[in-house]
Amino acid sequence: MLRLSSSDPGFAEAFAAVVADRRESAVDVAADVAAILRDVRERGDAALAELTTRFDGHDLDRTGWSIDAPACAKAFDALDPALREALELAAARIRAYHAAQLPEDRDYTDAAGVRLGATWRAVDAAGLYVPGGRAAYPSSLLMNAIPAKVAGVERLVVVTPTPNGEVNPLVLAAAHLAGVDEVWRVGGAHAVAALAYGTGRIAPVDVVTGPGNAWVAEAKRQLYGVVGIDMVAGPSEILVIADARNDARRIAADLLSQAEHDPTSQSILITDDAAFADAVAAAVELELAALATQATARASWSANGVVIDVGSLDEAPALANALAAEHVEIATEDAEALMRRIRHAGSVFLGRMTPEAVGDYVAGPNHVLPTGRRARFSSGLSVLDFMKRTSFIQLDQAALAAIGPAAVALADAEGLPAHARSISIRLGQ
Amino acid sequence: MLRLSSSDPGFAEAFAAVVADRRESAVDVAADVAAILRDVRERGDAALAELTTRFDGHDLDRTGWSIDAPACAKAFDALDPALREALELAAARIRAYHAAQLPEDRDYTDAAGVRLGATWRAVDAAGLYVPGGRAAYPSSLLMNAIPAKVAGVERLVVVTPTPNGEVNPLVLAAAHLAGVDEVWRVGGAHAVAALAYGTGRIAPVDVVTGPGNAWVAEAKRQLYGVVGIDMVAGPSEILVIADARNDARRIAADLLSQAEHDPTSQSILITDDAAFADAVAAAVELELAALATQATARASWSANGVVIDVGSLDEAPALANALAAEHVEIATEDAEALMRRIRHAGSVFLGRMTPEAVGDYVAGPNHVLPTGRRARFSSGLSVLDFMKRTSFIQLDQAALAAIGPAAVALADAEGLPAHARSISIRLGQ
Repeated sequence: MLRLSSSDPGFAEAFAAVVADRRESAVDVAADVAAILRDVRERGDAALAELTTRFDGHDLDRTGWSIDAPACAKAFDALDPALREALELAAARIRAYHAAQLPEDRDYTDAAGVRLGATWRAVDAAGLYVPGGRAAYPSSLLMNAIPAKVAGVERLVVVTPTPNGEVNPLVLAAAHLAGVDEVWRVGGAHAVAALAYGTGRIAPVDVVTGPGNAWVAEAKRQLYGVVGIDMVAGPSEILVIADARNDARRIAADLLSQAEHDPTSQSILITDDAAFADAVAAAVELELAALATQATARASWSANGVVIDVGSLDEAPALANALAAEHVEIATEDAEALMRRIRHAGSVFLGRMTPEAVGDYVAGPNHVLPTGRRARFSSGLSVLDFMKRTSFIQLDQAALAAIGPAAVALADAEGLPAHARSISIRLGQ
Repeated sequence: MLRLSSSDPGFAEAFAAVVADRRESAVDVAADVAAILRDVRERGDAALAELTTRFDGHDLDRTGWSIDAPACAKAFDALDPALREALELAAARIRAYHAAQLPEDRDYTDAAGVRLGATWRAVDAAGLYVPGGRAAYPSSLLMNAIPAKVAGVERLVVVTPTPNGEVNPLVLAAAHLAGVDEVWRVGGAHAVAALAYGTGRIAPVDVVTGPGNAWVAEAKRQLYGVVGIDMVAGPSEILVIADARNDARRIAADLLSQAEHDPTSQSILITDDAAFADAVAAAVELELAALATQATARASWSANGVVIDVGSLDEAPALANALAAEHVEIATEDAEALMRRIRHAGSVFLGRMTPEAVGDYVAGPNHVLPTGRRARFSSGLSVLDFMKRTSFIQLDQAALAAIGPAAVALADAEGLPAHARSISIRLGQ
């Protein structure tokens, strides 16, 4: 854990290094991924079968290529009732928040008599990548699938690796609850290629979302333009801004809830009280000792944890804006006033009773959020990622007479005479 | 020009080939672009100066690195008054349409007592690529710059190559009118790298938009994630759906307004009258003969033009949805009914008096639109490309007691005990 104080002479430089630290894999998989994409594009299902045998250790023709709806329903019915109700509460709250996000169409005629508008429509089909193994989170499936369904996507396809043929029943249960239409047992860059290009068995989709390892992320990046994608995701991160009136153990738990995700995760505390900073650092050690995910959380906290003392919380918004963190928790007296000064954050958790983890599961807003300072320019996943807008324009003779000549002048100036002609011929010129 | 009829036995296959034809450059510039990006990242302004000398043939230290605001204002004042008024009309109409696009913030408390919301904010800085030479369109500068300014972007930076040191006064005039803050005389992949990484002279931006050649497009693709970008743009295209009650010359002019952009552009006509199709084909030849851009337009029409006879216009929406064209003009009796059945299009131009070119300049909606079937999943440029949304969540003790236990159950099921702990510790568990 790195301890900084904003009053230190070297603070600006040390903080800049924290901001610049990407914590992302430096492994260059671009060429390998490009070869896999080409292979799936050319050989389709045969390539998928071979790559699944090689990477996941099972034969799709024997284990089955897909998991059908009754199997997903069965997994849902078999859940412990408390867990089933928790998933249902999460799904209902995520659905409600995203339904309120649906954009409105526009259609109006302006003073020049020009009818203008825009119509939002869902994409026809969306593909959702669900990782296998440690990161196979049913909550993540809900967070990706529900916005797609709320947007109106008719065909929602999950691809997920099942290493050695083992299926995660929680993922199947979540797929059932979210109304997923197809579940294919393929993962990795080849699964993303199958979604984008289509194969004999898997029809192509229009948008691919969902988290994945470096190969999956690179496949999405390379296929951007062939399909729409959600953002490129990096390691998770939390910034907690807390004054001394918090329970140090609670703040420590919040920091560790991020650290336990992965050794590359980052947890940062900004506080205006050095003694409280010490108390939190000590509480982190206490909490770690009791944590089943101790090894991961300790690795993350040791390598990437940062505790910053500031002279006043008034300094916090500028630091937060430079970090542009995925999650920003504000546990201070006037959290609202601080939030208004934070321009760049994926999501903000206000007050002492809003641990970030509640947003991961049941609050309702999406937990797929921009990482690695990308909150400067991108947003969390929403229904808009599964929709697109078509603008429309309608003129009559009078409207064309009113604004057409200006278009002719501009087309002439740009050296595009056919543009000008298509207008002037309608004005009898 | 390819002539098809939907009643031909081979139509489905021939039409599928039209849909699949990408018309995009197959030149692989990825490795060259990656080297340029690395060079600019490492050596900054020195790399920019060398690459500008090599590609644009002038020495930035002699011609000047940037163009200041007074020079842009002077270019604007020197415009022919009719052209100046045309630019002003275009700017005012683009501004009005995009101002109505600004998204609304949300802030509400739901039945469980959970406060939820989302706040939209502009990015701090945006960079706009403006091509040099043939494609240096002032209209394009307005279409990119005005949405950024309407969104609230405080620093808007133009990069544009000035081959052999020659500046395009129309571009400077448009930059003045749109309120561009900086104009740098650099182009190519190295200019995009400068915007994304920053150099000694050019501060980095958060979003890069604007058209460019294959190198610029690849640079944007590779830098996606370092900055936000607008879509990857391909050759322009128009689909005209027209019945026989149109003037064939007008429809021919509309088809050529797209063809004159570039030899890779595509113009497609769908009509339910074979004689009208013949008349349009003949009118295209007549119009071409009088066109200053004849060479380009003829090359495009010969290589990529398509005329499709359908038995009934009822067939048109399905064909249009498969093409997912950038521009769709509907010049038929009931244009509105056809539009309602078109799910995938960048922009629709309704009726006989709405030539697509009016949308290129003065109608108001953005002319930066998805090409190459990307209207299946992406939208035209808008204020949203220069904004991002931060969600927020606030719970009190009662709200956490209501929904927190479900989150604990899910965290436990996902094997994330620190997530569970951050909630249960606040519930006294």
